Amino acid sequence: MSGMDRIVYRPVRDRFAYTFGGRMPVAHLRSGDLLEVVTEDCFGGLVRGPADLPSRVCRMPYLNPVSGPFFIEDAEPGDTLAIHVVSITPARDWGVSATFPHFGALTSTPHTPTLQPPLEERVWVYEIDRPAGVVRYQATVSDHTVDLPLDPVIGTIGVAPGGFEARSTTVPDAHGGNLDTPEIRAGTTLYLGVAVHGAMLALGDGHARQGEGEACGVAVEIATTTTLIVDVIKGVSTPWPRLESDREIMSIGAARPLEDAYRIAHHDLVGWTATLTGLDPLDAYQLVSQAGRAPIGNVCDPNYTILAAVAKTLLPSASEPYGGAHDRLRQLATATAVGGGS
Amino acid sequence: MSGMDRIVYRPVRDRFAYTFGGRMPVAHLRSGDLLEVVTEDCFGGLVRGPADLPSRVCRMPYLNPVSGPFFIEDAEPGDTLAIHVVSITPARDWGVSATFPHFGALTSTPHTPTLQPPLEERVWVYEIDRPAGVVRYQATVSDHTVDLPLDPVIGTIGVAPGGFEARSTTVPDAHGGNLDTPEIRAGTTLYLGVAVHGAMLALGDGHARQGEGEACGVAVEIATTTTLIVDVIKGVSTPWPRLESDREIMSIGAARPLEDAYRIAHHDLVGWTATLTGLDPLDAYQLVSQAGRAPIGNVCDPNYTILAAVAKTLLPSASEPYGGAHDRLRQLATATAVGGGS
Amino acid sequence: MSGMDRIVYRPVRDRFAYTFGGRMPVAHLRSGDLLEVVTEDCFGGLVRGPADLPSRVCRMPYLNPVSGPFFIEDAEPGDTLAIHVVSITPARDWGVSATFPHFGALTSTPHTPTLQPPLEERVWVYEIDRPAGVVRYQATVSDHTVDLPLDPVIGTIGVAPGGFEARSTTVPDAHGGNLDTPEIRAGTTLYLGVAVHGAMLALGDGHARQGEGEACGVAVEIATTTTLIVDVIKGVSTPWPRLESDREIMSIGAARPLEDAYRIAHHDLVGWTATLTGLDPLDAYQLVSQAGRAPIGNVCDPNYTILAAVAKTLLPSASEPYGGAHDRLRQLATATAVGGGS
Amino acid sequence: MSGMDRIVYRPVRDRFAYTFGGRMPVAHLRSGDLLEVVTEDCFGGLVRGPADLPSRVCRMPYLNPVSGPFFIEDAEPGDTLAIHVVSITPARDWGVSATFPHFGALTSTPHTPTLQPPLEERVWVYEIDRPAGVVRYQATVSDHTVDLPLDPVIGTIGVAPGGFEARSTTVPDAHGGNLDTPEIRAGTTLYLGVAVHGAMLALGDGHARQGEGEACGVAVEIATTTTLIVDVIKGVSTPWPRLESDREIMSIGAARPLEDAYRIAHHDLVGWTATLTGLDPLDAYQLVSQAGRAPIGNVCDPNYTILAAVAKTLLPSASEPYGGAHDRLRQLATATAVGGGS
Repeated sequence: MSGMDRIVYRPVRDRFAYTFGGRMPVAHLRSGDLLEVVTEDCFGGLVRGPADLPSRVCRMPYLNPVSGPFFIEDAEPGDTLAIHVVSITPARDWGVSATFPHFGALTSTPHTPTLQPPLEERVWVYEIDRPAGVVRYQATVSDHTVDLPLDPVIGTIGVAPGGFEARSTTVPDAHGGNLDTPEIRAGTTLYLGVAVHGAMLALGDGHARQGEGEACGVAVEIATTTTLIVDVIKGVSTPWPRLESDREIMSIGAARPLEDAYRIAHHDLVGWTATLTGLDPLDAYQLVSQAGRAPIGNVCDPNYTILAAVAKTLLPSASEPYGGAHDRLRQLATATAVGGGS
Repeated sequence: MSGMDRIVYRPVRDRFAYTFGGRMPVAHLRSGDLLEVVTEDCFGGLVRGPADLPSRVCRMPYLNPVSGPFFIEDAEPGDTLAIHVVSITPARDWGVSATFPHFGALTSTPHTPTLQPPLEERVWVYEIDRPAGVVRYQATVSDHTVDLPLDPVIGTIGVAPGGFEARSTTVPDAHGGNLDTPEIRAGTTLYLGVAVHGAMLALGDGHARQGEGEACGVAVEIATTTTLIVDVIKGVSTPWPRLESDREIMSIGAARPLEDAYRIAHHDLVGWTATLTGLDPLDAYQLVSQAGRAPIGNVCDPNYTILAAVAKTLLPSASEPYGGAHDRLRQLATATAVGGGS
Repeated sequence: MSGMDRIVYRPVRDRFAYTFGGRMPVAHLRSGDLLEVVTEDCFGGLVRGPADLPSRVCRMPYLNPVSGPFFIEDAEPGDTLAIHVVSITPARDWGVSATFPHFGALTSTPHTPTLQPPLEERVWVYEIDRPAGVVRYQATVSDHTVDLPLDPVIGTIGVAPGGFEARSTTVPDAHGGNLDTPEIRAGTTLYLGVAVHGAMLALGDGHARQGEGEACGVAVEIATTTTLIVDVIKGVSTPWPRLESDREIMSIGAARPLEDAYRIAHHDLVGWTATLTGLDPLDAYQLVSQAGRAPIGNVCDPNYTILAAVAKTLLPSASEPYGGAHDRLRQLATATAVGGGS
Repeated sequence: MSGMDRIVYRPVRDRFAYTFGGRMPVAHLRSGDLLEVVTEDCFGGLVRGPADLPSRVCRMPYLNPVSGPFFIEDAEPGDTLAIHVVSITPARDWGVSATFPHFGALTSTPHTPTLQPPLEERVWVYEIDRPAGVVRYQATVSDHTVDLPLDPVIGTIGVAPGGFEARSTTVPDAHGGNLDTPEIRAGTTLYLGVAVHGAMLALGDGHARQGEGEACGVAVEIATTTTLIVDVIKGVSTPWPRLESDREIMSIGAARPLEDAYRIAHHDLVGWTATLTGLDPLDAYQLVSQAGRAPIGNVCDPNYTILAAVAKTLLPSASEPYGGAHDRLRQLATATAVGGGS
């Protein structure tokens, strides 16, 4: 990657996408380009207060809009797209959450149906105080408030899936998508396997913060201005999404039941660890078993997500993941002085 | 609780228990007593080197021995037993792990059977350097080594279940048991619902450390000397195991599939939070959804375990859990100068 | 087996058991003995009309009483107990079903908890017309009625589990127990692996009929007089319950999630088929895949149950299962002129 | 529907579809039209003998080709498409099955990954004797053979999903697709909710027969000539696929874990039963619980499938499902003398 362009993309209303795959690109990027993109929240910005019940103001399937897709030059099936998250900035001074009928981990749902009526639908509005770095929770029935740390993530980011498929932006799977993990923060690099010519990157669904599992189904949802640097790693395939921070490498599994998400993430991390370190596969399995973290992403979407993570310092004489892509992009981000983590 | 006795219990070989329930007590404790108990490792100490393959040296069902049960005076069904973990000290300068045929998260098992042969059975021996606070991983096929932080936990701790049941010590459930979570460290207080006269507390299965999920099915297994203080909280029932540290309250779910463990833990934590804070249940659901951690315990035992945790500082005007039992026991532990957490 | 005794057992109220394991035997049987045993319904006979809501009239854990256990002479761990069901006769001219709070497949439950309130608790009373062979459904809100075929089964039958365990009679597992399958009819032979000296057979929980999966959690529950012939098959172990009818051999899996019950049953049936026929394991897998039935037992109990069944006529040159035990016991039943299937 | 056209469609090689959705139609049909369509087998006809290992001769994602899609005039989102299966005729005198690496119920898979190597890949060729109505199983390692009943079904049939999605033909879901149930025989009527203008019906993946659950992942796969009559039922929506035979109404659930497929099917059947009979929902729940069948479709595809079925004679004073569409189409099929069930 040589000259770096800065592409700024602000979608107009009818240019949002609701699938990964099956859409024409909105812009072209080259490896090393810096993309500054405005993303809308999961409700398309239509839920602004307690009276804006999502089931009333939103219309299916116009949920979870993403900005893009972006055509990445030189990205071909079998390559890997590295996406370094430079910064995620809340676009407004508020965020929202909600209970949505028959959606979430502590309610029956269309896929785990029961004969019980839905929970009450309700909206929570959070103040976001960026200078203070806090998100203000306000109870709806009493006057309790509490400040939670601002910790912005991109909930939905992915490429077009293979096999001629187009998948709803509410779904996480091998192509990325609605991963909904608190780990995709500024300063991390996401690796996605490219399945179609041009990769077709898209993203949206920012969260000012979220708990592990996104229990009620809805994080503190925000519009963002997000800055990324992309890089194509030729000839290296990536079967499931992977993430790298300064400290850890992580594999992401997406499946139901939840143990299969755990299995996918750990199976991938064990293989990745063995490849990077030269360890025998069972030795890698052993090391990950004792040293690994396994943070849960979501337990509410069509596929649940879990990460398997291991600290890079614990990997004996490891070679650099993806040829040092994370460090290179991290430095590039710093060099452009646009960010470099929260 | 008034006068504090110090009870020291070191089981002889044939006094280990292999079930929770169905066993006569080995000693009596009163609220406020300090119990120093020696526990054996999950293999009964029989796996000491690479040649001691567990399937060869261990005999079913003599796995996962626990020390106890201890009869707790005044503990009756409907009460809660608070168990403050004062210290967990490795009894030897080594620990072991293994792949065990058809056991673990990345293999087929008797409950997820396939027609594939088992993975190779292999033993890993870890050096434990207590002064340095490290556990030394040593690869079996190559000569890679790496030091991991020593972080001892009790893998198995519980009371007798209700309904006249006796459950294998390999099983985690509402009575506690083989919870296998890295969160039951020194300095935490475990709350278990009492289901039988005398509660019948037992424990064992120390881990020098473990990853989240215990992927290969076996942590760094150690014998320990563990010190506890017990306290009976009368007239307060506890449906699922709960844990309290200086920083967080946590609920533990145990079930299959893994999402049900998540649901149980979060359902309990939401209710507990609502009770402690006076929040409306949906307000509590919302708060836990944005502020919670959900660390995975095990994804290999007969029931999988997940915790739901929330920081106590984030609970608006909360009353003290269990009337301040954790703080009281913590101080008592400090006063006896025997420990107080790692 | 030589001389056949006829043992008649009618439990008095306080002699019911609520666990498999952990109980002293109520009577002794020898191979070839005919046992006529009275069983109570799952509610202990306390639910007799619409006003007898189970949660009001029943007290935990006094649900699902079984008659027994019966000590079987000469039954040792590693043997198999064959139990031929000669007849299952409803003891009364009515049966009951109910919705029980937070129990059943179409409601949240304590193991799949949600924040929704339970479904309404309600009782259905069925007339049983034995001469006509029908069970009369009567709607509660309207006056619809319809006759369903009488098809009595034993819902709960098992032996003591191994490993010093005692399991609630509400649980199905490798020891049998609350299998809740419509396939354990008169005329079938159940094979259970013996795990303790004397086997400790017990049974109860008759159903006048049930649908596949027992969706609402409660079948048409009845007290019965059930007649069995038992036989010990020495030196042959049986890892999971198996069933044989005149037409089929069947393996029973009990687990969560439901696919694991499917896997267990089919893994066992494939191995059993290979053993009986001399087929290569993959050839047996192939045959069962094309020719098998997989009826669901329950999707509401602590473990779900599925059967894997294959017609005996489709097994090329198969040797007789368990040395022809089913045929022998079937003939013995006919010879005693007490029954031989419905 | 007035004049009936007979449309014959025989796809040429490059006109097969590998998704539901995202494809242009190959032909137009009107309500009442009779469609005779040639379908290829799931391997695209490339597996013809033991040497044609699927992983060698097939190329991803070119598996499970379907013929279509067919644009159905007047079918709009919110309507239901009724598809009466007139006949399913094997196109050749042989069928094939196989073990495919990491696919099937008794092996680890990409979604339930383990560190174990795959099972051996192997092909079974079946002779189909249409006059005799049998499918001949031939073992690969020994010379055992056995005749199984010929019982042809369409494994994959569906419409385009909503939400701008395109789903692989290997996936069953609310739009139909790879349902893989032995119940979609000649003589049944399938009801699918229309989600896009023109419905976009497609089908393929015939099975000469299959066991319940399709344990090894592959049925006796055949090319077919299949004859259908289609009918648009205006203004009636159908959330999940439904099936009607002369004897039963059935709802189909597709999900993981398997219990969710059970829940979806039964939730739908309970609601459908209540609507048809006027029964209170809990009365309908009760009736289905005692009278229902729950045959398993597949336990190997990306979503597992289960049906919930109840005999029409057991539904008190029920109105006719979909206004009597099944009976009308059945008579139409008979009138055209082209078939009417196997």
